[in-house]
Amino acid sequence: MSQPDPRINIDRLIAELQCLAAISDCPEPPPAVTRVVFTETDLRARDYLTGLYEQAGLAVRVDAIGNTFARWEGAEPALPAVGSGSHTDAIPHSGMYDGTVGVLGVLEAIRALKSAGAQPRRSIEVLMFTSEEPTRFGMGCTGSRLLSGAITPDELAQLRDSDDQDYDQVRQAAGFNGPLDSVELPSEYYHAFVELHIEQGPVLEAERLDIGVVTAIAAPAALQFTVTGQGGHAGGVLMPARHDALTAAAEVTLAIERLAQQSRSPDLVATVGQLDVHPGAVNSIPSRVRFSLDIRDINNDNRDAVVREIGVQAQAIAERRGVAIGSRVLNADPPAIAADSIIDAVEAAADALRLSHRRMISRAYHDSLFIARVAPTGMIFIPCRGGVSHRPDEFSTPDQIKAGVQTLALTLAELAK
Amino acid sequence: MSQPDPRINIDRLIAELQCLAAISDCPEPPPAVTRVVFTETDLRARDYLTGLYEQAGLAVRVDAIGNTFARWEGAEPALPAVGSGSHTDAIPHSGMYDGTVGVLGVLEAIRALKSAGAQPRRSIEVLMFTSEEPTRFGMGCTGSRLLSGAITPDELAQLRDSDDQDYDQVRQAAGFNGPLDSVELPSEYYHAFVELHIEQGPVLEAERLDIGVVTAIAAPAALQFTVTGQGGHAGGVLMPARHDALTAAAEVTLAIERLAQQSRSPDLVATVGQLDVHPGAVNSIPSRVRFSLDIRDINNDNRDAVVREIGVQAQAIAERRGVAIGSRVLNADPPAIAADSIIDAVEAAADALRLSHRRMISRAYHDSLFIARVAPTGMIFIPCRGGVSHRPDEFSTPDQIKAGVQTLALTLAELAK
Repeated sequence: MSQPDPRINIDRLIAELQCLAAISDCPEPPPAVTRVVFTETDLRARDYLTGLYEQAGLAVRVDAIGNTFARWEGAEPALPAVGSGSHTDAIPHSGMYDGTVGVLGVLEAIRALKSAGAQPRRSIEVLMFTSEEPTRFGMGCTGSRLLSGAITPDELAQLRDSDDQDYDQVRQAAGFNGPLDSVELPSEYYHAFVELHIEQGPVLEAERLDIGVVTAIAAPAALQFTVTGQGGHAGGVLMPARHDALTAAAEVTLAIERLAQQSRSPDLVATVGQLDVHPGAVNSIPSRVRFSLDIRDINNDNRDAVVREIGVQAQAIAERRGVAIGSRVLNADPPAIAADSIIDAVEAAADALRLSHRRMISRAYHDSLFIARVAPTGMIFIPCRGGVSHRPDEFSTPDQIKAGVQTLALTLAELAK
Repeated sequence: MSQPDPRINIDRLIAELQCLAAISDCPEPPPAVTRVVFTETDLRARDYLTGLYEQAGLAVRVDAIGNTFARWEGAEPALPAVGSGSHTDAIPHSGMYDGTVGVLGVLEAIRALKSAGAQPRRSIEVLMFTSEEPTRFGMGCTGSRLLSGAITPDELAQLRDSDDQDYDQVRQAAGFNGPLDSVELPSEYYHAFVELHIEQGPVLEAERLDIGVVTAIAAPAALQFTVTGQGGHAGGVLMPARHDALTAAAEVTLAIERLAQQSRSPDLVATVGQLDVHPGAVNSIPSRVRFSLDIRDINNDNRDAVVREIGVQAQAIAERRGVAIGSRVLNADPPAIAADSIIDAVEAAADALRLSHRRMISRAYHDSLFIARVAPTGMIFIPCRGGVSHRPDEFSTPDQIKAGVQTLALTLAELAK
């Protein structure tokens, strides 16, 4: 390969990852991180990143919902650019590598290419997506959904957080203004898009490999359930007279677990991650419970069949218990397939660097799931310890991160030729 | 009966109940009420009550944890007083009659006796208890527990709220200072204690009776459970590898419900009213769940046997699922028996007023459960619609409240003779 040798300053990159981790609302210190979109903490993290991008000589642009673009202009700036990026928001009490390795890694890749004297023909652009995580609005990837036209501006504007504020109010209060219909990317904006990310699964570590070349991203769906029963005094209402919303929700939660375990697809996973009890007092029978369902599979049809069966069993539970159970699909997305051109470029880069690699699918989803609808897209995975993610002990070694950033740098240089 | 006729101003009393209901942190308007101990709202409610007591010519004293005494001095003030009162704190999103009918009702009873020219030999004292509800500190009746010596000052000081602040810090921040060991009542402080309360059950309404004469209060216990599993990314961890804390908690919740339903005592009730999921993100497997158990029975032994069986089943669930389940008893109190002298006085008062009445037990517990340890104690119940309590639609009619206050007034006058 005729690329310049990418000299990654891994110490600087690790220091920047640690600095970003310190911008957190988690009561525990880093590596525990909480950074929810459009909070003060999210804004401070954005300021930090923008400062780094500008120091590196990149031209920064922020769209109406906070998606942040930082461009290294190519020799032919009118050509569609090569994009790379990820997210910086973090679910409560999670780790410091999810998303951030992609956002800071591409910056280090660009700095390395620049200092090696590379002069790409196409512009190379960092993209930091707003709100990959569904924590606040129940729907993940709102930034990439709007960029790719996977959601309409009206649908996005009306999403609500737990304080019943809508997305449109919240983004404006955070200082992101401008019309929502200005966000969608023009056609052929990107020639290619590559996202560097930790695997969030155990495969690469178990097989002692350096690089995962992602060929597809699993199909995710998210639902919200509401169980409405009858409240009352925990001392005053005898057991046969009860219509307890929490015990009904517990039964549905166990039905979800059982259906996922018994699914014919071993890749199907289903999780109830949020569950809120109303009124939530020690001595009060729960009158209403809201809970989330996150369900994914490589196979779209199998996933949808399990969702339907969950609905059937929930209705049977509701009837037997004399409660009402409603559900709402927040999103049900098809899987994404990576572009062959990018798979080839990543494999060639890893070979040139003498890094071991394999093709794999991503069971976690990413902003690339949506960018794949509007540009040839691929992903580079690096191992993470024990496959652990969304926890404070999420970890990749500096060497693993360095290998990923090197691979990304060569891939970007090749795609921008 | 030779008592003065108690002229209750029911319109004024209802207006005062409505005013108190308006002092609330509930996002919905009254009759929905939220008033948690030692919040700004609790302090405003206390100010309102103290003002009313002083206007009525009562001498107000507040102890080191905010229990508030308002005394109408008798002809022989050195004699043990006759006490009556209840609580003003309200669980989230509850109603406007629980506790408040007793706190404002005794004030109206005293005003009626005063205006009728009564001159009691013993002092009559209003007692507004701090924190009957367990909302903030997990343990109910902290005020009456400390007054009666049912909890030590050290035990009380160390109770923690969900922000991990201890009781001692919180009461001092709310302006209640002084040594905790000054709170316990001297022996023979009260000659008698009577609490007026809504029934919080369906019996009186169903039998179309005016007054319930309480003979015993059921034995309540409260436990807190913590389930510790393994978190992780909802996409990254396949179903067979999971140790989900929430599905384990769901199974324990259903075991609790089943054991309560199958108990040989129809009076046994068990409720999981609070359940908190950590980290509580849509796309994260729950790593820790905390939940409360409230369990009551007329029969102490039966209640404790069910608690033991719940523990056995929880451990079996923990082993099978590879999670840890710990539990802690917050309180496990014996039942209380009402004093015959007070039962007789209440029945005589109701007869003199030509009100229908019956003897009954209280399945809800009250501060009287603890005051009964240090003074002859009894309770007067009035009907509430549908037996509903701890909900915004909790309701007693003005006539029902009036009958209860009249009965209380005559009972107090008789006991203070």
